[in-house]
Amino acid sequence: MPMPSSVQSGTGQLPITQSFSVAASGFHDASLDAGVQRFTAQLSRQTGIPFRPKGAPVLTIHSDHGREAIQKLGEDESYDLSVTSSGAQLTAPTPLGILHGLQTFLQLVQITPAGFAVPAVAIKDSPRFPWRGLMIDSSRHFLPVDVIKRNLDGMAAVKMNVLHWHLSDDQGFRAESKVFPRLTGMGSDGLFYTQADMRDIISYAHDRGIRVEPEFDMPGHTRSWFLGHPELSSGAGPYTLEGGGIDPIMDPTRESTYKFLEKFIAEMAKIFPDAYFHVGGDEVDGKQWDANANIQAFIKSHGMKNNQDLQAYFNQRLQKIVAKNRKIMVGWDEILHPELPKTIVIQSWRGQKSLAEAAKLGYSGLLSYGYYLDLMWPAARHYAVDPMSDAAATLSPEEKRLILGGESCQWAEWVTPENVDSHIWPRNAVIAERLWSPQSVTDVDSMYARMNAVSLDLEWLGLTHRSAREQMLQRMAGASNIFPLRVLADVVEPVKDYNRWDDAKGPIDFHAPLTRMIDAVYPESELARQFAASVQTYIKSGYKDQAAEAQIRAWLTTWRDNDAKLHPLLDQSSLLQEDAALSQNLSALGAAGLQALDYLDKSQTPTDSWKTQQLAVVDQASKRSADLFLMVAAPVQKLIQASAGAP
Amino acid sequence: MPMPSSVQSGTGQLPITQSFSVAASGFHDASLDAGVQRFTAQLSRQTGIPFRPKGAPVLTIHSDHGREAIQKLGEDESYDLSVTSSGAQLTAPTPLGILHGLQTFLQLVQITPAGFAVPAVAIKDSPRFPWRGLMIDSSRHFLPVDVIKRNLDGMAAVKMNVLHWHLSDDQGFRAESKVFPRLTGMGSDGLFYTQADMRDIISYAHDRGIRVEPEFDMPGHTRSWFLGHPELSSGAGPYTLEGGGIDPIMDPTRESTYKFLEKFIAEMAKIFPDAYFHVGGDEVDGKQWDANANIQAFIKSHGMKNNQDLQAYFNQRLQKIVAKNRKIMVGWDEILHPELPKTIVIQSWRGQKSLAEAAKLGYSGLLSYGYYLDLMWPAARHYAVDPMSDAAATLSPEEKRLILGGESCQWAEWVTPENVDSHIWPRNAVIAERLWSPQSVTDVDSMYARMNAVSLDLEWLGLTHRSAREQMLQRMAGASNIFPLRVLADVVEPVKDYNRWDDAKGPIDFHAPLTRMIDAVYPESELARQFAASVQTYIKSGYKDQAAEAQIRAWLTTWRDNDAKLHPLLDQSSLLQEDAALSQNLSALGAAGLQALDYLDKSQTPTDSWKTQQLAVVDQASKRSADLFLMVAAPVQKLIQASAGAP
Repeated sequence: MPMPSSVQSGTGQLPITQSFSVAASGFHDASLDAGVQRFTAQLSRQTGIPFRPKGAPVLTIHSDHGREAIQKLGEDESYDLSVTSSGAQLTAPTPLGILHGLQTFLQLVQITPAGFAVPAVAIKDSPRFPWRGLMIDSSRHFLPVDVIKRNLDGMAAVKMNVLHWHLSDDQGFRAESKVFPRLTGMGSDGLFYTQADMRDIISYAHDRGIRVEPEFDMPGHTRSWFLGHPELSSGAGPYTLEGGGIDPIMDPTRESTYKFLEKFIAEMAKIFPDAYFHVGGDEVDGKQWDANANIQAFIKSHGMKNNQDLQAYFNQRLQKIVAKNRKIMVGWDEILHPELPKTIVIQSWRGQKSLAEAAKLGYSGLLSYGYYLDLMWPAARHYAVDPMSDAAATLSPEEKRLILGGESCQWAEWVTPENVDSHIWPRNAVIAERLWSPQSVTDVDSMYARMNAVSLDLEWLGLTHRSAREQMLQRMAGASNIFPLRVLADVVEPVKDYNRWDDAKGPIDFHAPLTRMIDAVYPESELARQFAASVQTYIKSGYKDQAAEAQIRAWLTTWRDNDAKLHPLLDQSSLLQEDAALSQNLSALGAAGLQALDYLDKSQTPTDSWKTQQLAVVDQASKRSADLFLMVAAPVQKLIQASAGAP
Repeated sequence: MPMPSSVQSGTGQLPITQSFSVAASGFHDASLDAGVQRFTAQLSRQTGIPFRPKGAPVLTIHSDHGREAIQKLGEDESYDLSVTSSGAQLTAPTPLGILHGLQTFLQLVQITPAGFAVPAVAIKDSPRFPWRGLMIDSSRHFLPVDVIKRNLDGMAAVKMNVLHWHLSDDQGFRAESKVFPRLTGMGSDGLFYTQADMRDIISYAHDRGIRVEPEFDMPGHTRSWFLGHPELSSGAGPYTLEGGGIDPIMDPTRESTYKFLEKFIAEMAKIFPDAYFHVGGDEVDGKQWDANANIQAFIKSHGMKNNQDLQAYFNQRLQKIVAKNRKIMVGWDEILHPELPKTIVIQSWRGQKSLAEAAKLGYSGLLSYGYYLDLMWPAARHYAVDPMSDAAATLSPEEKRLILGGESCQWAEWVTPENVDSHIWPRNAVIAERLWSPQSVTDVDSMYARMNAVSLDLEWLGLTHRSAREQMLQRMAGASNIFPLRVLADVVEPVKDYNRWDDAKGPIDFHAPLTRMIDAVYPESELARQFAASVQTYIKSGYKDQAAEAQIRAWLTTWRDNDAKLHPLLDQSSLLQEDAALSQNLSALGAAGLQALDYLDKSQTPTDSWKTQQLAVVDQASKRSADLFLMVAAPVQKLIQASAGAP
């Protein structure tokens, strides 16, 4: 994963033994050599084999020529990988293709009855889109350098090539400016990236074939700027990082604002070598502009109709500054305005429709709508979103070429360094596949099987998307024997979309602990998915599939008996008390499902009152509780309805 | 753990909330400040609470004065910790006591129905022995700096204060010498600690109240020296790191050997500031001396009787070199010889008897016999070994004072960076308690309960003693759904003592993968221990304890049904095939145990032939298989015998 564009299976397999080694011909440099070394180390970690090269190299690689010193959009990333029982050859026009091919090789390695091996195969592969990104929000919760690095490793493993780094927002300014030290000095809680950190990340990413595009969101989402620089603001202040809402906006009417941005962007443009520079531009709430008489006078005196026109004016000024630094400006949907030059790139969080509109006007675009990892969607839902579908499907071939790809987005309202990996992975691998593989690759069962395999591989890179849950559950329980807690955690999912937000409670406290069950569990329940599939298989078989029934019965029994086991843990922990209802509901679902199975087994029809009662159990269990949903409620409902004679 | 010397429980508890903070008075310096910061960070990790100090400090610390620039044996490590519902005070004569007290505080934090809290308590604590060490062998398998560091964190958590670092042995020379670069250049596989690494480790340890004592084992266990310096050897060579046996010995008859050692020890003495310098001295196999006519002539011409006298001569020369560098010489039992000065320290791997003999001769001593972690003993067995028991118990008070403490030893024949933590932890915590806590602290059930609790805490330090197993099992299975594999892994233990060694197979290949079940599992099966206890409870109750029976039945059922589930995994992996018999045997044990329970339930007496048959099953299941033992065989045997009417 992502599935290569062409795969031809061969016969036999290439054993991976202790004598394994790689030999390179053609172009190579220190960066590529380091990539090969990482590959070998990773292969050694995955297999547990300490290599002692002997004999002829098992894998030979050949890069025709070098790559750009500063990675460019659209550089050739293709590669050919051929594996036979006697050896493997990886060839590519550039080291970028070699890096991708090595990742494919790592994914092909599997344990077999005869040891570790790669099946014989001939792969020709190249990406569908040249821009395949992950946006990481480091503002709302700061993520240390090592967290960013391990996520870069994850991105490289699934062939993503852009880290879009959201470095400033209302809640914190995270990029050190030496010109304006108050930006982080007053605009953060002391947690930020030094310029050395940023250069380190950029170099780390470059070695992995990943561009780093910084985002400094403006003119909205800028409260953190105003703590140190209230003169940039349209309102009176004073500002604190803790305040809620997204009201504070820059004042686009003062020349001093642009003078500031000229210096700031020049400084950042030197640190970030990438050709693209993201200026945000989303969710500009006009309240401060409406309330500021000078700004309203400016709008009138310049013949503008409204705040949108003012933002367009700001963006034109901004674009000139960005262009002066030889960068291409990127922004969210809202920056789209016909007066901006066609060179800018529109990143759509609103959907394929706005992407298509932009393309029709001649603007390049990126899709992020449908790829928001923080919304806790199941992988299949992200997988179904295609940049070229819906409105984009009707574009002309030239217009389609303007759609450069897409980016998944990890907004950081509800993550810490501890659980951010599990919010990104493994679901991000599925979006990576959507952006790399042919549009025709859409089989959901295959996707899940491959996602689960790649998820294991990712843990060998140091990502903690699977292991962190265990530690968080242990913290909640204050105990090591957390089996019944795991049983519950395995079948719940967090509320979706923005439903965790509760405006009645006031603004989110970004310093509150994130240590609840909702923070520990995976966004998607793999067990619930398997359970639903088994129930479907069982019902489709006319209740004859005994293996499916045995499996369903085993799960239901575990759930039925779980509440009694979990209760002692729930009682002793403030972090678990809120999960008591969930646990009871799960046991009730287990009991109801088992009764339904018994009726089906005996071919008896239950009474109407039984059915009504059990559906009430399901109804109760389907409700949101502790911001979680029991994902096995719906399949249990199917069993009850089936036992009561529903088709 | 270790249990403090005096604990008085109070009433109420001190809540740990987001406003938690620490204030220091009295002496403090950068090292202590860093210790307090680590403490706060660790408390934040454990609880998941990002602290935002507010109001009065919750914990106040006071160190009367500073500590020695170079940590000394016997420095005051005592502390007083008083916790009430309104705050906590930690006082100590030196920062060493403060560091220990902070670890105690961390261990006291627990989740309660009202949030995280520390129970009210008054603790007065000081160590029983001044020397509480862990020996890590970095020669046989190299352990990178980060592995050493996380183990230092673990040592600090259980108040151990000496890292005895075994840096050279036959299989690899791991300490960079700039005077003799061929030592690592030819005497290692390229994996060694640079001098900067060693200084880094020493400083890291010092900050945690841990001395670092280097060991360069000589004149035996020195094959790695001879690759680059064959002139030191008593034999002809040539030498390779791979060769087996422990034959190669230094030539103590040549002056050039001492000239070499003078330069080498002077170099190392500068790097390692500790007052003690370990010269090994164990297992000197005399074959090379016997075969060397010059050496035999030297023995005769100097009026020596045998090789032991020659080693004593070597040690006298060595001791002078060590003393010239203002260090105290430490060595294993074999260096004990009346002609050596009383300042040397004897580390006993042979038992309390040789420790007592040394003490009677006026030599200080350390006990390591009984603390060899690589022998895979259960924690309780290590726990039962006391430096002052057996022969040492009969010593006079003055002689007893010569027993400085002890050291656990992690010899590295069978460990890699991946599984070394699980070979050391949590069992090492039990040895730490033996060396810190009063001799009267011996309750085994309490020990296991506290060891399991501290084991969880240790994972928050970054140790992987629990989490690594999961990844290793997944590697073996090539799959993420390894539930049945975990069931098997939970009830097996590696063969004990040196029984993994198989001389018939020739020397150990130190570069072979360590990826078998024996490498992944914990040295001690917690589940088997619990199962045995439940069986005992059930039998003692006259088969009336229904809770115990239900628990036993649940486990037996899981085991009985497990082989069918595990088989698909076993078949597909070369790393699991050897475990097929174990898996079958476990299921057979489950079935046998369930039948026994049924007889007991119905108060029926089984036939003799049934009993014979079932005991044969147990017999089969008790045999070593894949270098593992099924630890639940004995309790199942008890059930069978009980059902057949045994008392």
